[in-house]
Order: sequence, then C-alpha cells, then structure tokens
Amino acid sequence: MHAHGLSKKQVLAELKKIRRRDKHYDDGKILCSMCTKPHPMAIKAYRLFLTSNLGDPGLFSGSVQLEEEVINDLATLLHGENCVGHVVSGGTEANLMALLAARNMAHVNAPEVVLPESAHFSFTKICNLLDLKPVYAGLDDSFRVDPLQVEKCAGEKTVAIVGTAGTSELGVVDPIEELSRVALEHKVWLHVDAAFGGLVIPFLADAKLNFDFALEAVESITVDPHKMGMAAIPAGGIIFRDSKALDYIKTETPYLTDQYQYTFIGTRTGAAAASTWAVFRSLGVEGFKKVVGKCMKTTRLLADGLTDAGFKLVVEPTLNIVAFRSDGGTRHLVEKLRRQGWFVSYVPRYDCIRIVVMPHVKNRQALAFLKDLVVNQKC
Amino acid sequence: MHAHGLSKKQVLAELKKIRRRDKHYDDGKILCSMCTKPHPMAIKAYRLFLTSNLGDPGLFSGSVQLEEEVINDLATLLHGENCVGHVVSGGTEANLMALLAARNMAHVNAPEVVLPESAHFSFTKICNLLDLKPVYAGLDDSFRVDPLQVEKCAGEKTVAIVGTAGTSELGVVDPIEELSRVALEHKVWLHVDAAFGGLVIPFLADAKLNFDFALEAVESITVDPHKMGMAAIPAGGIIFRDSKALDYIKTETPYLTDQYQYTFIGTRTGAAAASTWAVFRSLGVEGFKKVVGKCMKTTRLLADGLTDAGFKLVVEPTLNIVAFRSDGGTRHLVEKLRRQGWFVSYVPRYDCIRIVVMPHVKNRQALAFLKDLVVNQKC
Repeated sequence: MHAHGLSKKQVLAELKKIRRRDKHYDDGKILCSMCTKPHPMAIKAYRLFLTSNLGDPGLFSGSVQLEEEVINDLATLLHGENCVGHVVSGGTEANLMALLAARNMAHVNAPEVVLPESAHFSFTKICNLLDLKPVYAGLDDSFRVDPLQVEKCAGEKTVAIVGTAGTSELGVVDPIEELSRVALEHKVWLHVDAAFGGLVIPFLADAKLNFDFALEAVESITVDPHKMGMAAIPAGGIIFRDSKALDYIKTETPYLTDQYQYTFIGTRTGAAAASTWAVFRSLGVEGFKKVVGKCMKTTRLLADGLTDAGFKLVVEPTLNIVAFRSDGGTRHLVEKLRRQGWFVSYVPRYDCIRIVVMPHVKNRQALAFLKDLVVNQKC
Repeated sequence: MHAHGLSKKQVLAELKKIRRRDKHYDDGKILCSMCTKPHPMAIKAYRLFLTSNLGDPGLFSGSVQLEEEVINDLATLLHGENCVGHVVSGGTEANLMALLAARNMAHVNAPEVVLPESAHFSFTKICNLLDLKPVYAGLDDSFRVDPLQVEKCAGEKTVAIVGTAGTSELGVVDPIEELSRVALEHKVWLHVDAAFGGLVIPFLADAKLNFDFALEAVESITVDPHKMGMAAIPAGGIIFRDSKALDYIKTETPYLTDQYQYTFIGTRTGAAAASTWAVFRSLGVEGFKKVVGKCMKTTRLLADGLTDAGFKLVVEPTLNIVAFRSDGGTRHLVEKLRRQGWFVSYVPRYDCIRIVVMPHVKNRQALAFLKDLVVNQKC
C-alpha cells in the first residue's frame, strides 16, 4: 500500500488500463466459459443492490424478498412444492450444502458418496472437506453414469448419490430417473448437480428430460443463475425438497439479526438475488426459451460444421456444449486457436476440445471459429 | 417465473420499490454491522469489473494482477514476506482455507483445533465441515483468550490454534504474541482471524498490538476488505506465510485455464479484488489512518457518553466496537431502539448491546443515538 492515496482520476485511469487486459464476452471469442455476459437488467439490479448483505437479513428485508422469490421461481421450474433454499455463491457452495445435509442426516461412520466419474471437480473439494469417501461409478457409451454401476457402488455407508444434469465437460445429462430408483431402493439422498443444465433443460424445445423434483428420490438440486441464468457472479442456487434439510446445516449466529444461518458463506451480497430476480422478471419462461433456443441452434450449426469438416463429435450435444476431436491430434489445436484469440477448453480425460455455446456466442462467431479451426487443422 | 417477461421500465420500478425496504448505511442508524457503505471508488471499480471471473484466471489476467497486488499489499501491511494468498468471499471461506491447510498438513486422526471461547461462529461451521473437534479455551478478565488455558487445551491431536484480532462481539484482540509462544512450543499452526481487526490495527495511532506475521508461529491470517477495508461484498482475504500451504488446499481443474484452484469457491468475481484495490490506491496508509482515527474518536465519544449516562462498558474499547449494559436490564432496550430506527446487536453471551462504529457512523449520529438511548432507559 502506498503511503498516500491517489486521485479518483488516477485510480480510475489505472483501473481502466488494467481492465483492458481482461478478455471480454462481447467479441464472442470466449468459447470455454460456463459464465456469460450478464443480462443488461442483471447488471442494473446488481448495481442497485450493491451494498445489501443477506448475511444480516434483518437489515435487508427487500433483498430477502427477492431471494425468496428467486428460490420459489427455481423450485417451481424444477417441479418442487414447498421447497426451501438459498441464493449462494455458486455451484461449489450449493453442492457443499447438499452433501453436508445428507452426511449430517445419515450420521454414519466413514461416510461415502457415490459420484459419476464425470462429476464436477467441486465434489473433490467437498469430499476433501467433509471427509466423505468418493466412490466413482463408471459411464456408459454416451458418457452418462451407468445406473448398474451406481447400484454396485451404493452400500451401507453411502450417504448420497449424485447425478449431473449437464456435465461440465460434455453437457451430458445423467439418467436421473434410474438413479432415483436406485436411491429409493437404498433409501439414500439423491442430489442433482444441475448447476449448468437447471436453467437449460426446462426451456428445451424437444428433449423431455426428467431430472428434477418430479422424481421422488431427488432431495436437493444445485442450479446456478450465474451460468445460463445470465445473472452476475456470485449467483448460485441450492434448493431442498424438504425444509427439514435445513436442520442439518444450520449454524447459530450469536449477534446478527437472524438466529440461524443456512449457508456456508456468512456475509453475502443481496445483489446476487436481485440480479437473478431481474433476469427472471425480464425474460419470463418465453424469454428463456428464446435464449436457450438460440444457443441450441448455434450448437447445432457448430456440431454439423465440425462433422462436415471431418472432426469427430465425442457425443451428440444434448445441451449447448459441443465436444470434438481431430484424427490428426487435438491438443495442439488449442494453442493455435489461442494465438488467434479463441479460447476453448482442452479436456484431457476425453482428449477433446470443449465449446460452451453461451448466449454471448453468435452464429457468425461460430462460423468464424469453424473457419479458423479448419485452417489450423490443415497447417 | 411468469410466462412472459416485463419491460425494463417495469422491472426497474419494481426493483426500486423493493430496494426501499432495505436499510441503508447513509442515515447512520445501522450500528450492528461489520460491513459499511463501500468507498465510492470501490463501487466504481466493482462496476467496471462486474463480468470478471477469477475462477478462470487465464481469461482475466487484468483481474489476476489486481488480486496479486491486493494480496501483496495486505501481506506487507501484516509484516509478511513472500506470502501467498487469495481474495476470497469473506471471513468464513478465509478461515476455512486456513484450517483446511492446517488439518491436511498435520494429517492426524481425530484432529482438534484450539479456539478461544470468543471465536467467530464461522468456526462452528468449519469444524462441522472438517470434522475438527473444537476445544475451547476460556477468556481472562478482559475477554481475551487465556494463554494458559490454550496451553492446557493443546495436545497431540491439535492441528491448529486460533487467535482473534478483533472479536466480533467485543472488538478485543487476543494475546497473539503469547499464543505464538504456545504454538511454537507445540509445533502447531497458529491462525489469526483478523477479519475485522486486520484493517484497523495497522492504522491505530497509539496501540502497538503485535498480531501478525511479525510473530514467528503465525502461519495464516484472515483479513476482510469488505469490513474495515470499505470494499464491496464479497471481498475477504486469506494470507499464508508460506507457499507450501497451497499444496494442502489445491484442487485440480480438468478444463479451466489454470491447472489448480486454491480457493473453496470456484467461479468468483474479479470485481472484489478490483474494489479492494481501488480503496487501497485511493486511500493509501495515510487515508486509512484518517478513517480509522475518525472511527476511534467516535468510539471514544460513545464510550464516554455511555459511562457518563450510567451505562457499564463490558470492556474498554481497543478497536471501534463498544459493548455496554444497563443495570436496569439491557435486552429490552434493543427493541425500543429498533422502533426508533436504530439497529444494534444484543449479545446474549455477555448480556450486552454491541455497537460497531463503522465509517458510515458520524459523531452527530452517535450523539443522537446516545440521546435516544438515555430516554429509553428512563421510560
């Protein structure tokens, strides 16, 4: 820290200069992110609620109202009734609260959780924290977790089974319906990580994917407004089917305006709830269908173009994620594309390039990407 | 969610109406919060970096630079050399990362942590998560943890000792120097929770309180810019003395632009770092001294006024927190004050009212509060 402060003008000029080193969503060249440019109303709402703290709800009852309405909207969208939940910092905290509730409720020695091999890496963090032993179930040919393997992995120590609705690497949706049957049989908590898919699947035109509270065993769902909900970071969501879950995750607060906290994070911005609320009200179901429809069209355009150019899709896209590889080698293409300004992910597990077709990616950018990709492959 | 979206104008009008139900820092009536109105430059910087995601650092190298500079500034302020750390979501995540590193490094069965009875309630959450057994050490007459009790509590299973530099309830600073001696003797990790005090103590005019990396055993410090650093939520900080700590908390990321993550939260806004950076650059050490000096003057004014009016201070203020009680009963005053718009905390443990004199609380508001308090006490 310098001894003396600088003027507003100096600080702002320096900030703007440094900000130019960040990439921006507008040019459509970020193809590796599950976040996107927030909806204009998400930004306005965030600014309006910037000083709100949901960690001290007695002071911010307007923000509390917005959080409740967002949670109700999400629960209804996910076919839940009388659900409870919170706007949290993102998928990691949401998954944590779910597994914490499941672990504490089950209260067994040396607890285990059955995870798909394709589960998000946040579960590695969470298992490390919670001293939960992850037991990994393998995938079927289409990279969905194999329910027979889940069945085999489940035992007396299992406190939860996890399924993913929209894996981070391939956008695949696990067979949650079958997981629900396994979970019911074993009387075990089923958590669905729909951080990405939770705000895509309900708006898909064709696919009818059963993944939510309509399935009896589903006790909790993670769904992140700061991904396909176009809210500003940090806006995650955790929804529980039953309010009893809260008893297993609550902490007493000795001096705040509320007696208990049900989130891991204490001080947390109300702007996240406001930002989400603003998008939900601005778009409505029809608006979301349009956004998702557009993303799926661009996804199709990209998938077809890749196939036409001789690339192999790892799997047919279910959601707005495309993963592909090249017979001539894939990894080296990532660096070449980077030099042209394209940001794509390389996924070592499947030796593939992954593209997330977020709302900021337009058709013309997808086509420009294809063109650059094909040239790169040839030279 | 409604079927159809509403217009910008409708959504904004509704948001503004709801926002009016939130309390605001400007009227100086929030006397119960460790957060405050962010510095104007913190707000500007937050807005500028609203779309940045430090969970994907390869995309946001400008934001990465700001985070590094903030961590360096904090480390230097706390007498650290070659420290490492991150801007996290707040004190809870910061304390988690510290105890996770300590637990994983020690790698003992049935691990324990020695906590002051006055430790923040986030440690209850963390112990629950980490399956750490909290062993509580009692306090001395001035509500600081008693080092002899800490000594007694420490044993073979102890993975960390925690001290607080600025307790949430009384603003007391534990005798970290003596805790350092105990920790060295037991060869155990010493973590200092300076979430509140870390950006107060270095700027105090008189008190020389030894609480940071100048003390040999201190391995990690929590310090929250969104408290006395006047940054916008969510801006917490965790600083480790030694980069080796990161090995114990890292998680591999299979598809992001960086290979490892060292924070619990994955997707995290770069605006928090930018917001903190903007305050640090705008104020500098001299600016912070002024802010802290003003808060301490108002604290003194309040403490003297309370004593003059016959209230009993629980303890002489060290930082900008005043705790007091009334011989005629204390709890009932909280509700009376609330009806007049004053928000104060009631702390059952000490049967006292606690006031946090944050930068948004001016002298005239402190005097108005005193006046209302005295009237309430009499009737």
